[in-house]
Amino acid sequence: MDLSTVGEFGLISRISKILGDPGEGETWVGDDAAILRAPAGTIFLTTDLLVEGVHFDTRLTGPEDLGYKALAVNASDVAAMGGTPRRAVVGLGLSPGLDVEWVEALYAGMKEFCAEFDMAVVGGDLSRCPQIVISVALLGNPAGRLSIERSGARLGDAVCVTGRLGASAAGLELMRREDRSRLDLLKAHLRPTPRVKEVEVLRRHLPSAMIDISDGFCADLGHICHESDVGVLVQAGELPLVDLGSLDLGRSALELGLSGGEDYELCFTIPADRSDKAIAAVTEATGTLVTKVGEVVDAARGRALLLETGETPLEAPGWDHLRV
Amino acid sequence: MDLSTVGEFGLISRISKILGDPGEGETWVGDDAAILRAPAGTIFLTTDLLVEGVHFDTRLTGPEDLGYKALAVNASDVAAMGGTPRRAVVGLGLSPGLDVEWVEALYAGMKEFCAEFDMAVVGGDLSRCPQIVISVALLGNPAGRLSIERSGARLGDAVCVTGRLGASAAGLELMRREDRSRLDLLKAHLRPTPRVKEVEVLRRHLPSAMIDISDGFCADLGHICHESDVGVLVQAGELPLVDLGSLDLGRSALELGLSGGEDYELCFTIPADRSDKAIAAVTEATGTLVTKVGEVVDAARGRALLLETGETPLEAPGWDHLRV
Repeated sequence: MDLSTVGEFGLISRISKILGDPGEGETWVGDDAAILRAPAGTIFLTTDLLVEGVHFDTRLTGPEDLGYKALAVNASDVAAMGGTPRRAVVGLGLSPGLDVEWVEALYAGMKEFCAEFDMAVVGGDLSRCPQIVISVALLGNPAGRLSIERSGARLGDAVCVTGRLGASAAGLELMRREDRSRLDLLKAHLRPTPRVKEVEVLRRHLPSAMIDISDGFCADLGHICHESDVGVLVQAGELPLVDLGSLDLGRSALELGLSGGEDYELCFTIPADRSDKAIAAVTEATGTLVTKVGEVVDAARGRALLLETGETPLEAPGWDHLRV
Repeated sequence: MDLSTVGEFGLISRISKILGDPGEGETWVGDDAAILRAPAGTIFLTTDLLVEGVHFDTRLTGPEDLGYKALAVNASDVAAMGGTPRRAVVGLGLSPGLDVEWVEALYAGMKEFCAEFDMAVVGGDLSRCPQIVISVALLGNPAGRLSIERSGARLGDAVCVTGRLGASAAGLELMRREDRSRLDLLKAHLRPTPRVKEVEVLRRHLPSAMIDISDGFCADLGHICHESDVGVLVQAGELPLVDLGSLDLGRSALELGLSGGEDYELCFTIPADRSDKAIAAVTEATGTLVTKVGEVVDAARGRALLLETGETPLEAPGWDHLRV
């Protein structure tokens, strides 16, 4: 059954059933705006668009995965501030010829994400649009007054990353080849896990700066360098890279790891004398690998990658949406 | 100069200059999420998409007006809850061939809105997209713990509306005809004024239910009836309609007023013994016309429009985005 059969209000009613009942003191779908409870003080607000043909291809990505990922990439931004994602609104651009079941499956994926991360989708907007556009805006709470910004890295801090880099880019390449031999890599691309649970432990150890890796490790670490006015030395041999095994994807694990993007791992800096304890605490609590990969140096020293064969500038073109 | 020349980060830097510096204790553009200050307790969150070819045509609508309107329609939703709009994030889908100046003018229009209503755009996201998509998510604060929902209308309440109905629909029709003879009507369509200032006065008089008129008076009043489980009797002769003068738009002022949509006026209900005082207070403080147009009746009585020639059901097809 296509959307033009049920209409906007029929679809809203179906979506509302999927989203469930609001918590006490809140009103979600069904009024002009959602009514939410918020703690006093600081909140985080972020937004990310996913556009069909740019961020995803419906022939390759199913609606459940897409719904899950749309929330995950926004939750990752809140986690990268040291926050806990709480509430989201979803603006959807949809073609009237789309199946109702497709949209319901999109929301089922969001609901799955919400159940896993104690979050809720509390409202949204629907519009006709020639291609599918998913626009999420997400509110998060900090722990107390804490926010971990990009500008806090200091000389001598350790540079650390969670998880393994390059898995999402490898998964995307496999997907394009219709190669389903490595489900772990496909999953890294289709259902990235935002490091929300890791941040709940890590923030107690006060990282000095943090960012999530959406554009690529080099590009995103570059943002920390730029905002903190520092340089970095990264040991290539220490980088936790995706294990490609015998796969030949045309690019090495190092290339994928440095510039692949969409890993949604965290890159953070932390005073060196606290780094081991912080890493151990996160790994013990969550099982997630956290690796020290380098150190913060003077801005004049620049950004360098140390390879066995010598040193090379740490520069990689991150994804730029507007360059063609 | 087109967007592909400046790239995503060049454009963000230009936008950031237009948006200005954050207030104390806040961080806007430039990190993973905006850091905002919020009052304890309740907040409102809403989102609205504007899609090129559906909501606007760039040959007819300039970017300043579009930026202004994108915030206005969201602010109107927060006002309709009894709230004050405060902070917004903006997701933009843009074609790389678009002019940088167009995007800067879009933000100039938003900035103008923000100056007028003491609001701020605090962040966003950019993506490539075949047509322009503007997705705004807006946070608002209530006055104390107050929220004015659609479900609060009670038997005997007066039904009131602000401003004049049908002006936006008349303006849209003039725009399509490239008729610039009535700038007041064009402005009603291009730069609707959300009734934020009116609500700041009105909410002290405790309306029982409220909605903003985006889909059309009949459709939106119908939402109050549905959510409150009541009926209404509306006096056609009391409706504050657009003055078309000698214009022949193919539809009467009454038709435009009942189903035109996009007026962004407020329709509210209020106990009858408080209505005159509330109306006088709003008009005195803001100069805005507020009119009592009918009364809330039993749900079994239904929704009716009283014309000189008799009674007719108050039904009008509101805009449905997904029916074709």
